[in-house]
Amino acid sequence: MTYQPLDSGAFPRFAGPSTFMRLPQARPDQVDIALVGIPFDGGTTNRPGARHGPREIRNQSSLVRRVHHVTGISPFDRVRVGDCGDVLASPLDPAKAIETIAEFFADVRKAGARPLAVGGDHLVTLPILRGITTSPVGVIHFDAHSDTYDSFFGNRYNHGTPFRRAIEEGLIDPKRMIQIGIRGAISDAQNYDFAREAGIRIVFIEEFMQRGVGAVMEEARNIVGSGPTYVSFDIDVLDPSFAPGTGTPEIGGISTREAQEMIRMLAGLDIVGADLVEVSPLLDSSGVTALTGATLLFELLCAITG
Amino acid sequence: MTYQPLDSGAFPRFAGPSTFMRLPQARPDQVDIALVGIPFDGGTTNRPGARHGPREIRNQSSLVRRVHHVTGISPFDRVRVGDCGDVLASPLDPAKAIETIAEFFADVRKAGARPLAVGGDHLVTLPILRGITTSPVGVIHFDAHSDTYDSFFGNRYNHGTPFRRAIEEGLIDPKRMIQIGIRGAISDAQNYDFAREAGIRIVFIEEFMQRGVGAVMEEARNIVGSGPTYVSFDIDVLDPSFAPGTGTPEIGGISTREAQEMIRMLAGLDIVGADLVEVSPLLDSSGVTALTGATLLFELLCAITG
Amino acid sequence: MTYQPLDSGAFPRFAGPSTFMRLPQARPDQVDIALVGIPFDGGTTNRPGARHGPREIRNQSSLVRRVHHVTGISPFDRVRVGDCGDVLASPLDPAKAIETIAEFFADVRKAGARPLAVGGDHLVTLPILRGITTSPVGVIHFDAHSDTYDSFFGNRYNHGTPFRRAIEEGLIDPKRMIQIGIRGAISDAQNYDFAREAGIRIVFIEEFMQRGVGAVMEEARNIVGSGPTYVSFDIDVLDPSFAPGTGTPEIGGISTREAQEMIRMLAGLDIVGADLVEVSPLLDSSGVTALTGATLLFELLCAITG
Amino acid sequence: MTYQPLDSGAFPRFAGPSTFMRLPQARPDQVDIALVGIPFDGGTTNRPGARHGPREIRNQSSLVRRVHHVTGISPFDRVRVGDCGDVLASPLDPAKAIETIAEFFADVRKAGARPLAVGGDHLVTLPILRGITTSPVGVIHFDAHSDTYDSFFGNRYNHGTPFRRAIEEGLIDPKRMIQIGIRGAISDAQNYDFAREAGIRIVFIEEFMQRGVGAVMEEARNIVGSGPTYVSFDIDVLDPSFAPGTGTPEIGGISTREAQEMIRMLAGLDIVGADLVEVSPLLDSSGVTALTGATLLFELLCAITG
Amino acid sequence: MTYQPLDSGAFPRFAGPSTFMRLPQARPDQVDIALVGIPFDGGTTNRPGARHGPREIRNQSSLVRRVHHVTGISPFDRVRVGDCGDVLASPLDPAKAIETIAEFFADVRKAGARPLAVGGDHLVTLPILRGITTSPVGVIHFDAHSDTYDSFFGNRYNHGTPFRRAIEEGLIDPKRMIQIGIRGAISDAQNYDFAREAGIRIVFIEEFMQRGVGAVMEEARNIVGSGPTYVSFDIDVLDPSFAPGTGTPEIGGISTREAQEMIRMLAGLDIVGADLVEVSPLLDSSGVTALTGATLLFELLCAITG
Amino acid sequence: MTYQPLDSGAFPRFAGPSTFMRLPQARPDQVDIALVGIPFDGGTTNRPGARHGPREIRNQSSLVRRVHHVTGISPFDRVRVGDCGDVLASPLDPAKAIETIAEFFADVRKAGARPLAVGGDHLVTLPILRGITTSPVGVIHFDAHSDTYDSFFGNRYNHGTPFRRAIEEGLIDPKRMIQIGIRGAISDAQNYDFAREAGIRIVFIEEFMQRGVGAVMEEARNIVGSGPTYVSFDIDVLDPSFAPGTGTPEIGGISTREAQEMIRMLAGLDIVGADLVEVSPLLDSSGVTALTGATLLFELLCAITG
Repeated sequence: MTYQPLDSGAFPRFAGPSTFMRLPQARPDQVDIALVGIPFDGGTTNRPGARHGPREIRNQSSLVRRVHHVTGISPFDRVRVGDCGDVLASPLDPAKAIETIAEFFADVRKAGARPLAVGGDHLVTLPILRGITTSPVGVIHFDAHSDTYDSFFGNRYNHGTPFRRAIEEGLIDPKRMIQIGIRGAISDAQNYDFAREAGIRIVFIEEFMQRGVGAVMEEARNIVGSGPTYVSFDIDVLDPSFAPGTGTPEIGGISTREAQEMIRMLAGLDIVGADLVEVSPLLDSSGVTALTGATLLFELLCAITG
Repeated sequence: MTYQPLDSGAFPRFAGPSTFMRLPQARPDQVDIALVGIPFDGGTTNRPGARHGPREIRNQSSLVRRVHHVTGISPFDRVRVGDCGDVLASPLDPAKAIETIAEFFADVRKAGARPLAVGGDHLVTLPILRGITTSPVGVIHFDAHSDTYDSFFGNRYNHGTPFRRAIEEGLIDPKRMIQIGIRGAISDAQNYDFAREAGIRIVFIEEFMQRGVGAVMEEARNIVGSGPTYVSFDIDVLDPSFAPGTGTPEIGGISTREAQEMIRMLAGLDIVGADLVEVSPLLDSSGVTALTGATLLFELLCAITG
Repeated sequence: MTYQPLDSGAFPRFAGPSTFMRLPQARPDQVDIALVGIPFDGGTTNRPGARHGPREIRNQSSLVRRVHHVTGISPFDRVRVGDCGDVLASPLDPAKAIETIAEFFADVRKAGARPLAVGGDHLVTLPILRGITTSPVGVIHFDAHSDTYDSFFGNRYNHGTPFRRAIEEGLIDPKRMIQIGIRGAISDAQNYDFAREAGIRIVFIEEFMQRGVGAVMEEARNIVGSGPTYVSFDIDVLDPSFAPGTGTPEIGGISTREAQEMIRMLAGLDIVGADLVEVSPLLDSSGVTALTGATLLFELLCAITG
Repeated sequence: MTYQPLDSGAFPRFAGPSTFMRLPQARPDQVDIALVGIPFDGGTTNRPGARHGPREIRNQSSLVRRVHHVTGISPFDRVRVGDCGDVLASPLDPAKAIETIAEFFADVRKAGARPLAVGGDHLVTLPILRGITTSPVGVIHFDAHSDTYDSFFGNRYNHGTPFRRAIEEGLIDPKRMIQIGIRGAISDAQNYDFAREAGIRIVFIEEFMQRGVGAVMEEARNIVGSGPTYVSFDIDVLDPSFAPGTGTPEIGGISTREAQEMIRMLAGLDIVGADLVEVSPLLDSSGVTALTGATLLFELLCAITG
Repeated sequence: MTYQPLDSGAFPRFAGPSTFMRLPQARPDQVDIALVGIPFDGGTTNRPGARHGPREIRNQSSLVRRVHHVTGISPFDRVRVGDCGDVLASPLDPAKAIETIAEFFADVRKAGARPLAVGGDHLVTLPILRGITTSPVGVIHFDAHSDTYDSFFGNRYNHGTPFRRAIEEGLIDPKRMIQIGIRGAISDAQNYDFAREAGIRIVFIEEFMQRGVGAVMEEARNIVGSGPTYVSFDIDVLDPSFAPGTGTPEIGGISTREAQEMIRMLAGLDIVGADLVEVSPLLDSSGVTALTGATLLFELLCAITG
Repeated sequence: MTYQPLDSGAFPRFAGPSTFMRLPQARPDQVDIALVGIPFDGGTTNRPGARHGPREIRNQSSLVRRVHHVTGISPFDRVRVGDCGDVLASPLDPAKAIETIAEFFADVRKAGARPLAVGGDHLVTLPILRGITTSPVGVIHFDAHSDTYDSFFGNRYNHGTPFRRAIEEGLIDPKRMIQIGIRGAISDAQNYDFAREAGIRIVFIEEFMQRGVGAVMEEARNIVGSGPTYVSFDIDVLDPSFAPGTGTPEIGGISTREAQEMIRMLAGLDIVGADLVEVSPLLDSSGVTALTGATLLFELLCAITG
């Protein structure tokens, strides 16, 4: 079996099975990098629909190609990458869904594959980390929101809380965590206190704009160092002009140019897993958000394997 | 205080507060009929978004007017009708949300008002009935689906199960229940067995088309008789050409003409409450489904008070 | 010069100038039937946008062909038909616009052409009648609304009042007028009093459904008789499932099948002019309402010349 | 291997691979009925996009279930049905694409499977017939257009000509062919002459409306008799209110109710193959046309195997 | 009474009344800052729909939160802010509407509140100024267009003329006025002559790009000085990628990042009122323009009260 | 005859014939610059629809005005510019269409006009060059893709190959060619080899971002020098946030600001023709891509005549 995308010079992009990047379907034990969909949005506090993210990102990823144009390297020539399907997380029972997701990713880890996961809402990062980490990892987190809140509507497990829970559970080393692109009004002036007190480095959009991609990413690399690191990319770190199809857009975000540059600067880190979350096709009539997600997934794949 | 819609000859329809039918906001104890939104879709097994139904139906209900053109009667001249706001049901915790909804409607009942509820997904009918019934009620149920399944993904409380649970809990007298418009492929040949064995009268779309509105509704009136009766209207009973904005559309449905005729034939029954559910604005780019929902809500109001 | 549509077997429908039915541009004195756009919606009380109707109906009319499939006759083989352009009515000054429109149609009349006008909102019917009538005409009026109200926001000239003004001005003989398809809640029980007292025959949708197209149109033909007759077709007489792109949709309307049958039964009457109004492209993302308008325009043309 | 759809009570409909009706991928020699996509629209004279039909119909077919609600029978319990993938027809070279399609279906025939094909534009019917017929077949053809024209832009192989070419090539017995739902203006009064002279029975929409589904389908069954019969369903036979997402919509069409009834009356015929064509997702923002196509595909499957 | 937004940790954002920023409804005399909708687009020369702006901005403002993330300050903790409803301006009679608006804002002034108005088209700025100014004010005007034209279609009161009229009427001191972001082709080379001769400082987009936000805003602050200043923000100053939902988009505009920075630099000025205009929901299918408008409204509120 | 756009102060932009920039229709021998539509997308390998580009760009060009705001100059005051209609290229026969297009542009050349063409997909550049060049021209090519591939699906004439064919045919001098904005993953590491070996200067987006508009365009001007030069602008050089409506979008592209600056720096070159291609209205629900295309067309016109 060969783990190469369908050749778009022979197989039209609109034809054939709709898998991530037109890759073969595979089991985790058959690949080095496992592309996994998590069609779950039961942690969403406002506009739902991220459960439809994996399917639409698969569709749009038919536009992605094999070789990175900057490096001239194809990740598919270096490692085995396959579409390992979707986690079957119940939309009706968030608590149970969290367990199902954690078990799936524990199996991915046992199979020896590194996961590149596609949400779903941001709550999925918590069970992914439960599944793949054995000791606290560093985290590079791209997002408009800190997602270190304590609860919504009295509920502690939702897409505004995954990083707080993960820190409390010892899955993340907050001293080795950085958040980039944070912005937008907050409910209370205390909203960032937990993150700050835990030691997370928060780079607000204003600082990001002032210092630029290079300086920020150099700092990010220093913060996570050479230890095991997880990358979490919430599509709403992008400005809504680039990614309108998401549940909690915040104006004044980063550009896809900037996102691409930053992801490329992840190369060489010890990335144990990554996710791309919060693409919501019901809010994305043009499909451009899913296309952006698919393209950044390819960039993440190149960075992880680069 | 007067419970009349804003006069659209003086207040442009696009101006002013967005309430149901441009009515005043009110507490249940101030009105005879309480219009209540239930922005909850935590029971949805496939495409979410009905949580946004109440807001968009309020918006579109600005097109509704005061007097029914067939009867020449305005419900607002007969009873006090107000917009009693939304139930604050947590989207993150379906079990808790069910309780919250039941308590809200128990309060409506205690306040002496009859509820006309706007979903939300169909699971909301269960807690409404818990809140307002003291003994088993009859039910006239318009829907493409029987919603008497036992469970999805191992979960017993979702938008495919409310009527089974309600019968099991003694909230509905299945001998006084009729389902109209049922259609569409099913998962198993046994899917209607519970409903049939419980004694529910199922009128499939094929029978409906053959016999016509008049005969079917005459039978419906006979089945529920003079006892207390609940009306549940799932917008997906309509053909998707009339109501595309819903999570589980089934082709070959009824027309709005037929729906209007049927609702008008409810007049004179002892209707203790009613709901209109499953309008999903994220799937309704033209807004026509919400407009249809708003107009049928007015028809229901006229029938209840007629 | 030949007044034939471009041949779609040679000129792709997506190519070439966008005129009504792909006809040549012409002056009224060059044709027998003048297709005229009236891009004006300054009489709209709620959702605007009908000003964009003529352009989009022209675009969609590229799908229309030459020969009626029932009669086997082409109107273009019988009379000269041309696209006489748009009336330049100011959107900023409704009173002046009414005058501009009336003058344009007076010129059409003087040029010896019969107008087939495309709105624009329904207010345009008033100045058309001012322009083309010399004595009171009969009217066959397809609409969801009677449009015989007295005023909105204190204003007497808007899309809810044209027929009342026209009767008051002696442009219409109300005894020779019929309204078909009227429906929807009204602001006051007195809303139809003016129409009834003037002698207009109102066929509500309920009567229409009961009696059927044939009986209603036979009556319509008797009412207008052999005298000069105007036909006004408001696209909202159609159900929103057929014509979502209009400012004041009312559910429970007629079908395009029924509309086509009715228009075909106009053949043989002395039709001095006709209009098709209230197509609003901003509300018509699929373009189906404009396509429907364009097709019914062709049906009207066949009926007028049949 | 078992040829059953994924169980939607365990696998959420928005999760898992996107195949026709959630069936396993299979080779033609593994199944009795081969579901095949033909993502080709190189024969389209006006609005393109049907090349995207198979993918979107697969997506929407996740809403289809196992058992027909009228018969209580599941086709999947009677025969082996699989998703046999897409024909890789070049969009750049229509002539070559026709050959590729014909070869694919010849292979399906040799493998012993009956094809149920999903277009693509209507030109695909010609190569399907080339691939599967050994002697002239009867045809039941649902469409707004006769598709028996001779050429467009001087080209004889396009979506307006497949049935003329097929008759000329001896693939169809025109005496055993019926066209149902034909309507819409035509370019020339002679447009139906070929079909009539060849002996095709044309049921225009007006006759269809007058006689009804039962009488028309009884005649259809008599015309094709007990010989091998092909069924071709162009989605534009449906009214645009039911199927807006198609390249050449014609108002005044049939309803999905009528289509379902007619397809059910195909049961018992010797159907050697069938297609459903002209769904164009770029024109179908709500997805309802693809959903309708998917549901009718299930009805066709039940009829073929019933 | 407390003037705080609903707490989105307790009240889901999709629930509850749709007011600006989820604030209480209030009378002008109850608040310090009056949020006022002006659903009027009777001054629009091309694509209408801004009359629907206030309602949709209210809807989208449910995504706004309490505390500015840069300053850590909530305006709601400093002043009383309420939703003071909509001005009931007739869409049918622009001249009368102008008077109605002026009277409304005169009342706001008399009540002692500062207005933050939401259009509507840009014509509304003229009557706002009539209502709130007693002597000529300075103006900081963000826009793609100068809006100092003399007339359209012979009409002097429309959305292309408010600032010329206001200067002529002595409402604005043109020497204390700056326009930022001006761009796009013009009808005549003389189009900016009035503005230049009056002494308005025009910063074209090219100069803006060269000098940057800081320098331009420093100049703006110097121009208006410490005197009473009005801020007018036309959403079309933004690039259409950020704000597609407006009637007269011009490519090559400013970003939301730049807009936010500029608005923040208004803090400390003596702002007597502000508006945000030209959001047109019918052209904004994703809602992102209204969301942007709502977010900038919050930024304006913070700047005014900062 | 005067070649000026309709005056939008007298003729509303939504009224009147839809021609490029509201110019008169003209024959090539009547003008200096011929605006020509090429509604052809038969060279499209993935998502079709660019055949609808010319019509929609005409519609949106009603927003364009007469005088460039930077130079204060109107191209219409310097040269005669007219809308010379559409090339009637068959969508069914790409080989024949290429010939038809070449002949059309040869006629434009013979008539003495310079063409400014509107696609259509990028394949159209090949026959344009065949029609207008007598010896190899220089080319400034704005695009995300090099379009110097050899073939797709075995076909050598499609929208990925025009520049390779043109070089092979001696229509372009590759030493005088520059490509700006290239980016996105590629199928093979060898994809740029032909371009590089032929001597084309490729400016990838990363280099573009680093060096900036000024430096890149200075180099471009040096490369083409004073010889005859063709300009080809593929709308997908823009980031999808600015131009979502195109068949092969690539994230991380240039902005409209940058595009405008670059086009302005073309002034003074010996431009013998230009095109703007790949606008696909079916993918452009907001119309913003067509508007952008129309505005850049005006910029190109100003640069050519400046």
